[in-house]
Amino acid sequence: MEINGVTIDNTYAEAFPTWVCRVIITAVTRDWARKAATEATGFATSAIGCPCEAGIECDVPASETPDGRPGVAILICTGKKKLKDQVVERVAECVLTAPTTAVFNGITNAEEKIAVKLHFFGDGYEYQKEVGGRKCWAIPVMNGEYVGEEEFGIVKGVAGGNFFVMGENQMAALVGAEVAAEAISHAKGVITSFPGGIVGSGSKVGSLKYKFMHASTNEKYCPTLREKVPDSKVPAGINAIYEIVIDGVDEKSVADAMSVGIKAAVKVPGVKFISAGNFGGTLGPFKIELHKIL
Amino acid sequence: MEINGVTIDNTYAEAFPTWVCRVIITAVTRDWARKAATEATGFATSAIGCPCEAGIECDVPASETPDGRPGVAILICTGKKKLKDQVVERVAECVLTAPTTAVFNGITNAEEKIAVKLHFFGDGYEYQKEVGGRKCWAIPVMNGEYVGEEEFGIVKGVAGGNFFVMGENQMAALVGAEVAAEAISHAKGVITSFPGGIVGSGSKVGSLKYKFMHASTNEKYCPTLREKVPDSKVPAGINAIYEIVIDGVDEKSVADAMSVGIKAAVKVPGVKFISAGNFGGTLGPFKIELHKIL
Amino acid sequence: MEINGVTIDNTYAEAFPTWVCRVIITAVTRDWARKAATEATGFATSAIGCPCEAGIECDVPASETPDGRPGVAILICTGKKKLKDQVVERVAECVLTAPTTAVFNGITNAEEKIAVKLHFFGDGYEYQKEVGGRKCWAIPVMNGEYVGEEEFGIVKGVAGGNFFVMGENQMAALVGAEVAAEAISHAKGVITSFPGGIVGSGSKVGSLKYKFMHASTNEKYCPTLREKVPDSKVPAGINAIYEIVIDGVDEKSVADAMSVGIKAAVKVPGVKFISAGNFGGTLGPFKIELHKIL
Amino acid sequence: MEINGVTIDNTYAEAFPTWVCRVIITAVTRDWARKAATEATGFATSAIGCPCEAGIECDVPASETPDGRPGVAILICTGKKKLKDQVVERVAECVLTAPTTAVFNGITNAEEKIAVKLHFFGDGYEYQKEVGGRKCWAIPVMNGEYVGEEEFGIVKGVAGGNFFVMGENQMAALVGAEVAAEAISHAKGVITSFPGGIVGSGSKVGSLKYKFMHASTNEKYCPTLREKVPDSKVPAGINAIYEIVIDGVDEKSVADAMSVGIKAAVKVPGVKFISAGNFGGTLGPFKIELHKIL
Repeated sequence: MEINGVTIDNTYAEAFPTWVCRVIITAVTRDWARKAATEATGFATSAIGCPCEAGIECDVPASETPDGRPGVAILICTGKKKLKDQVVERVAECVLTAPTTAVFNGITNAEEKIAVKLHFFGDGYEYQKEVGGRKCWAIPVMNGEYVGEEEFGIVKGVAGGNFFVMGENQMAALVGAEVAAEAISHAKGVITSFPGGIVGSGSKVGSLKYKFMHASTNEKYCPTLREKVPDSKVPAGINAIYEIVIDGVDEKSVADAMSVGIKAAVKVPGVKFISAGNFGGTLGPFKIELHKIL
Repeated sequence: MEINGVTIDNTYAEAFPTWVCRVIITAVTRDWARKAATEATGFATSAIGCPCEAGIECDVPASETPDGRPGVAILICTGKKKLKDQVVERVAECVLTAPTTAVFNGITNAEEKIAVKLHFFGDGYEYQKEVGGRKCWAIPVMNGEYVGEEEFGIVKGVAGGNFFVMGENQMAALVGAEVAAEAISHAKGVITSFPGGIVGSGSKVGSLKYKFMHASTNEKYCPTLREKVPDSKVPAGINAIYEIVIDGVDEKSVADAMSVGIKAAVKVPGVKFISAGNFGGTLGPFKIELHKIL
Repeated sequence: MEINGVTIDNTYAEAFPTWVCRVIITAVTRDWARKAATEATGFATSAIGCPCEAGIECDVPASETPDGRPGVAILICTGKKKLKDQVVERVAECVLTAPTTAVFNGITNAEEKIAVKLHFFGDGYEYQKEVGGRKCWAIPVMNGEYVGEEEFGIVKGVAGGNFFVMGENQMAALVGAEVAAEAISHAKGVITSFPGGIVGSGSKVGSLKYKFMHASTNEKYCPTLREKVPDSKVPAGINAIYEIVIDGVDEKSVADAMSVGIKAAVKVPGVKFISAGNFGGTLGPFKIELHKIL
Repeated sequence: MEINGVTIDNTYAEAFPTWVCRVIITAVTRDWARKAATEATGFATSAIGCPCEAGIECDVPASETPDGRPGVAILICTGKKKLKDQVVERVAECVLTAPTTAVFNGITNAEEKIAVKLHFFGDGYEYQKEVGGRKCWAIPVMNGEYVGEEEFGIVKGVAGGNFFVMGENQMAALVGAEVAAEAISHAKGVITSFPGGIVGSGSKVGSLKYKFMHASTNEKYCPTLREKVPDSKVPAGINAIYEIVIDGVDEKSVADAMSVGIKAAVKVPGVKFISAGNFGGTLGPFKIELHKIL
C-alpha cells in the first residue's frame, strides 16, 4: 500500500491495556494552564522507567470548562494501583502550587473513580463550594483560593499504540515525525507522552548481552547497524527512524490518532516508509492494523 | 527600604544545602534541546513531594557546547543519595529517548562525580568516541546515534532561596512575579523549579489540624484569611502573594538571582511589597538578606 | 447589566463596511505556515496609518487544506481599490519568499474575485497544476516549487467591531484584555489586527489642538485625565482601559467574537467595567449592542 | 574548503549600503515588547516590494534599558529619504498602539538623527519627562501613559549580506537554514528580515521573458531546473537551497553573523554545500568572502 508515494507496511501496532485519568486544569490564562499541565506531565515518558505515562491531550475552550476559564486536559496513564498516587502527587506538586489554577474531573461518566483529597492542605480553613455544578473544595492559598474537585473518573484505556516514520535521511524523518505529532495533538482522547511526541531510540525488552538491563536498543531498527545485524528490519534507503507512541482512552481514539498522524507524515518530502511495532501478539490484546485504519 | 515606590521588607530568605548536577543537553535544533530539557525537568517542583527539584538553567550557544550544536543546561537538585538515580533516570527516559540528543557534563571542575552509565543500552553495539575533547559513548539508536558523557560533576549548592511578590490585586502580583521569573531566567547558575518559576500556594511544615499532613497552607500569608488568623503577615492593602523559589550552584548565584528578580518585579504597576520566607534560622545555614543584596 | 460582578455598559459598538480577502497559507509544518502568516499580516493594525488591516484568523487542520498540509488562514481588510494590491504584495513578499509555502483561496463561494497573478515570477518556467481540485500555478524556486491559486474571493465584511475592558488597575485590565483576545482567536471569520489583539491607546478623529493631525488621543477615555477633562467617560475606580478591535467577514461573526471575548474578560479578577466605542451612529451602519449579544 | 564535511564555495556575498535606525521597545513584560516589535517589523522582507526591511535584532535585558523594563531592539533599514517616514509610521501604528509600550533611541552616538514626533498625538495633554536620562514625551492614553524619545540616531549600514544553505533534500536544507537563522538571532547589530530569517525563493533582477517584471525566479539556483537551464549553479546531489539574507549596522556585524550562521548550518546532517550570492561586483561595494570569515 502506498500513500503519496510512501510505502505503508502491511503490519500492525500491538497495544496493551492501561488505566487512564483525565484532569482538566484551568487558570486565569491559557498560558498558565499550559505551564501547570506541562510540569504535571513531565518525567512521564514511559512506564518502564517513569512512575507513569502522561501528556497534554488538548486545550479546552473557556466556554466548555466548569469555571468558564481557559483549560487544558491532561491524561495520566499507568497501572490501577499506582494511578491514584500519581494523580494525587502530580496535581498536588505541580498544579495546586501553580498560579490561579483549578482542577476538574475530566471523565464524569466513568464507572470507577479515585479520590484526590487535597483539601487537607487547607489545614481547616478549606470549605466546600459548587463551581459550574461540580462539588469542589476551596483552599485559601497565598495567591487567593485554589479550587478543586476531589473525585476523578478513571477508565481502562489503551497504551502503546504506535507507528514508525522512516526517512531517506534524519531530517526528513524528523520533520515527518514532527508533523505527525502536531496532527495528533489535535486528536481527542489521546496523548503522546515522549518529548515532542517522538521517540528517537526505540527499545526491545531485555538485553542480549547485559543481563541486568530491562530494556536495550532495538538493534533491528538501527540504521547504522543494518549491515551488522543479520535480521535488520531497516528497509533499503532508510537512514533514520522515529516512533510515535500513543496512549488513549480507548482503541478507537488510538487508531484514529495513528491514522491522522500517518496521513500528515507522508506529506513530508523524504519520508519513505511507514511501519509499526509489535511483538508478534505476545504483549497486548490490541492489534491495530495500518492498512485497515488508513 | 523602598525601590520604585515598593516597600522592601527588612528580612531574609533562609536557604539550605542541596546537591546539584548540571547536564548540558544538545540537539540538532534548540527547540529539540528545549523539549528534552522540559520533559527531563518535569514533575520536579519541590523535594517534599517530587523525587527532586529540577529546571532549565539557560540556553547554551552552539559555539560553547562540546559538539557545536544548540544546547540547554539543566540543574537537578536533591540529596546526595538520590541524585545519581534521578540523573540516570531522567536522562535515560527523557533525553536518550528524544530525537537527535546528546548529553555532556556541565560542571567539569567538580571535585565529586557521579557515574551515569547509559551505554549498556547499546547492548554491545555501543562504542567510545571523543566529542569536543570529551570522552563519550555512542549508542546506535533508531534515529542514528545517541552520544553521551558518563561522568557528571556534582557540587554542594543552595536550595530554597526565595522572595515574595505582593500586589494590590492578583493580576498585579502575578505579572510582577512573571517579570521576576523572566529576569531570573537570564541569570546563571540557578533554576526556579516551579511551573513558570512561580509558587501560588506556599506551605508551612506540618499541619495544625491534620496530623498526617507533612505540609499545609501557610495561613499567615493567605490574603483571604487576614482577618481570621491572629498573626497574619499579609500587609494592609495586599490581596495576592506569589513566591519565587530559587535553587543554585552556590549562595552568590542565588542571591544575585533574587536581586535581579526583585528589581524587575518592582517595575510592575500594582506591586506593593517584597518580602522573603524564613523559619527563624532553624532550617538552613544560609540567610540572604534583602536589604544587603539590593 | 452585570456578568460575574462586572458592569456591562448599555451601549453599542459602531462598525463600518470593509472588503475582506481570506488567504489560506500552507507549509510543510504549522510553524512555517504561521511564520509566513505573521509576516504577511504585519504593519497592518489600522487602515488609518497602515496600508490595510490584517491578521491571522485561525489554524486550518491539514485534513481541511487543499494540499493536506498544515494551514493558517489570514484575513486582509481594506477598501476595494487597495485590496488587490495589498493581497498581491503581501503574498508575493511574505509568503512566496518563505520556505515550503503554498496559498489557496479562502472564500471559494464569493461572488467577486481578485486576480493574484504571481506566476510571472516563474519567468516562463512556471506551469499549471491541479492541487486538491484547485487550479494552481507551480513556480520553480530555490527550495523546490511554490504552488498557488491565483483567484481569490472577496466579500464585503465589517470593520471596527470593538469593546473596552476596564480594570481597577493596569495589570487587571491587561490580563482581562489578553484573555478576551485569546478567546477571540478561536472564533471563526474574524481577526484582531492590533499587536496581541489589543489597543492601549484609542484615538479620536482629528485633534482639537493640532489641526494637521488626522487622529489624536481619545482624552475622554484616558484615566490620568479623568479630573482634567470635563466630560471624562472613565468610570469611577477605573485606572486602565484596553480596546479590542475586531474585523470580520460579516456582522454576525464580529458580534459573536465580541460576545465570546467579553465573557472571557469578565472572569479575570480586577476587571470592573465593559463598554464599547461608537460615534453616535455617524460613522458606520452597524450598531452592535452589548446587551443584545450577551 | 570543507567544514564538518560540508563544502564551502570559494565565493563572496555582495552587499550594498542602506540606512539603519535602531528602536528599543520596552513593555511591562518581554512578551508584550516582542508582540509590538513583531507587528512593527512585519511586511518588511525586501525593499524591492515592501516599504523597508525590518526585523528584531535582539532582546535587551531590563537592566540595560532606559526604563528598567524588558526590551526588544529592532532595526529598520531603507533609503535615507524613506527611513524617517517608515520609523514614524511603524512606531505610531504598531508600538504606540500596543499595551504598556515605550520607545527609546537605540543608536545614541550616531552623527545623524531623525525626528519621530509622536507627542502631537497627545492633543495638548502631553508633557516632557526624563526617563533614565533620556528626554522623552509622555502621552496620556487609555491604558495609562505612553512614553517615547523623539530623536533617533541613524547610521549607514550594510544590506544584502547572504549565504546559501544547500542540502541533499528539502528538509535537510530547511533545518540547516533554521539552525543558521537561530544562531544569527543571537548575533548583535543584525537582522534577517524574511519570515523566520529564511528565503525559499531567491530572485534575479528583472525577467528574461516578462519585461514588466522587476524581479523573477533565479532559475540558475532552482534544483528542479538543473537539467533545463544551460548554466545551472545547483551542485550535483543538491535538491533544495535556502538563502539567509542579513542586514546590519556595519560590514563587520554582517560578516560575523554570516560566519556564526554557516558554522551552525554545517552541523545539520544532509547539509552538503554552502555558497553565497553576488552579481559579479556590479551591485554593491561590499564583498564578504566566505573563506575569509570562516
